Amino acid sequence: MPDAPAAPRVLELAGGVGGAKLAHGLQALIGDRLTVVVNTGDDLERHGLLICPDHDTVMYTLAGIDNREWGWGIAGETFAASEMLAGYGEETWFRLGDRDLATHIVRTRALRDGERLTTVALRLQEALGVRARILPMTDEPVRTHVRTDTGWLDFQTYFVGRRQEPEVREVRFDGIEVARATPEVLEALAALTTTADSIVVAPSNPFVSVAPILAVSGMRSALDAARARGVPVAAISGIVGGRAIKGPADRMLASLGGEASSLGVARLYVGWVDLFVLDGVDSALEPAIRALGFETLVTDTLMVDDAARERLAHEVLEAVAPLAARRR
Amino acid sequence: MPDAPAAPRVLELAGGVGGAKLAHGLQALIGDRLTVVVNTGDDLERHGLLICPDHDTVMYTLAGIDNREWGWGIAGETFAASEMLAGYGEETWFRLGDRDLATHIVRTRALRDGERLTTVALRLQEALGVRARILPMTDEPVRTHVRTDTGWLDFQTYFVGRRQEPEVREVRFDGIEVARATPEVLEALAALTTTADSIVVAPSNPFVSVAPILAVSGMRSALDAARARGVPVAAISGIVGGRAIKGPADRMLASLGGEASSLGVARLYVGWVDLFVLDGVDSALEPAIRALGFETLVTDTLMVDDAARERLAHEVLEAVAPLAARRR
Repeated sequence: MPDAPAAPRVLELAGGVGGAKLAHGLQALIGDRLTVVVNTGDDLERHGLLICPDHDTVMYTLAGIDNREWGWGIAGETFAASEMLAGYGEETWFRLGDRDLATHIVRTRALRDGERLTTVALRLQEALGVRARILPMTDEPVRTHVRTDTGWLDFQTYFVGRRQEPEVREVRFDGIEVARATPEVLEALAALTTTADSIVVAPSNPFVSVAPILAVSGMRSALDAARARGVPVAAISGIVGGRAIKGPADRMLASLGGEASSLGVARLYVGWVDLFVLDGVDSALEPAIRALGFETLVTDTLMVDDAARERLAHEVLEAVAPLAARRR
Repeated sequence: MPDAPAAPRVLELAGGVGGAKLAHGLQALIGDRLTVVVNTGDDLERHGLLICPDHDTVMYTLAGIDNREWGWGIAGETFAASEMLAGYGEETWFRLGDRDLATHIVRTRALRDGERLTTVALRLQEALGVRARILPMTDEPVRTHVRTDTGWLDFQTYFVGRRQEPEVREVRFDGIEVARATPEVLEALAALTTTADSIVVAPSNPFVSVAPILAVSGMRSALDAARARGVPVAAISGIVGGRAIKGPADRMLASLGGEASSLGVARLYVGWVDLFVLDGVDSALEPAIRALGFETLVTDTLMVDDAARERLAHEVLEAVAPLAARRR
């Protein structure tokens, strides 16, 4: 009997929660053949510790220890250290749980000892039993800032500290000019073949999750090279019925001069995405999205439980695979 | 009506638990007129964080948040972060509670930002409402090592990791040659007058708690200068009935060539201590100790509760005060 064909390799571009849910569904399907490239523009230092919210959200989710009730952090998390930090006069608006702190402590020590962000990230993932590989988009520090009507804010001050209340007029990625795609990311992209592999853009914020990944030096050309070899790219809209599933993507689409809809997202992905996945409630937008040159998949994109995550992942892979043959 | 005379100023030299209990009794009597100079030779780095066990034991005790049940750490402490650190493959034989971690996080960040150990220590104490001042013996890193029959060990590996099982053949204080007494310690010593002030050596380990303090550059000469001005020095034996109240001081006295008794301790303090305080169970040793040139106080030195701490502190201050007049 011949061996069963190997599962496809998938490289996912991801921000936080939406990226984590999709990755969870993909990991259930293809296990260690999934590579998730995560945004690091949301990273921040608190209390002298480096925190990587997107990486850690994806990691905790793929490890099965994410806190489903809250939608962030670790299940059963406690906050004793944070309370003590507050007692010492530390600002604690960015809440750090006790278990979560351990992640930041190990990472920060490793970086101070000269380890690369990617290396320590993989070590943490392995310790937690994550089957997929989660790769920071770059080892160099990149810090997203947003311009509001009262001035520039670093991303987490805007996102957590100000609860995304100010309108965003402009986005910049400090450090992006020296940030390079890592060997691990470049190898993962180079390993993609057209037999069944694909690149999937998570339903993450196009401006502050996906854009920084693409802006890393070497990333776009490696993506383009994969595409030129025939590897298809799918992207899932994080806007459903004109509203972001989570976060401020809808308001950013409006304030940054676009349209808060799946169509508005699709316009941002013209030229490097083949398959655009939109929710059934937005099916009226499908013709306009197809007119932009996309193949489309209309389905239920809300990943409300494990089954829904896996089903969406499966449908996306099923829909994107035939495009590989077409692109070759 | 004339003002009541100011309470005496007391400068205590202290290690961990014994020093903390005495300091607690002294603080109850004289509040912010107490300065505790703590050993930092026990300090260590774990998980990239600087831990100062003696300072923190004294601080938590003076803040009233010490864990009386365990004899170390903070009351109501939890260990969620530590469990996660263990999950990441970190060695966790030096157990760090979640609340305790906050202390090390704040301290480590401050030091990396260029703050002195003394400055951040005072900040932490103030935040916890400590009335006395707890001064690290030096701002420079000093690390106690002990030579055992199988080689040199850093202090905490010996003390916690190996549970003080190996015999100690030699003690050295790495970094002591460049460690200087801080301005705060020197000012506290210079401020002592002979009206009622005194220096009190806690019932701490003479070899690894008291000796490193004395070995700091500038410490001994400042102590001698205070003594030369007439400020008396009292020392309390940490050996009762031939056994250390806590820790390996009795076995160190034997293995380092002395005698595991109050008399053995007293011999180490000849020449710079005026009043030697020993427990009633050792009263037979009083004549031999007096023969070494000490005044003596024989009393119950076990500080089993708050009342006992305060009573011992009171008795020591009462007994040492008249020596000031004699020394002038």
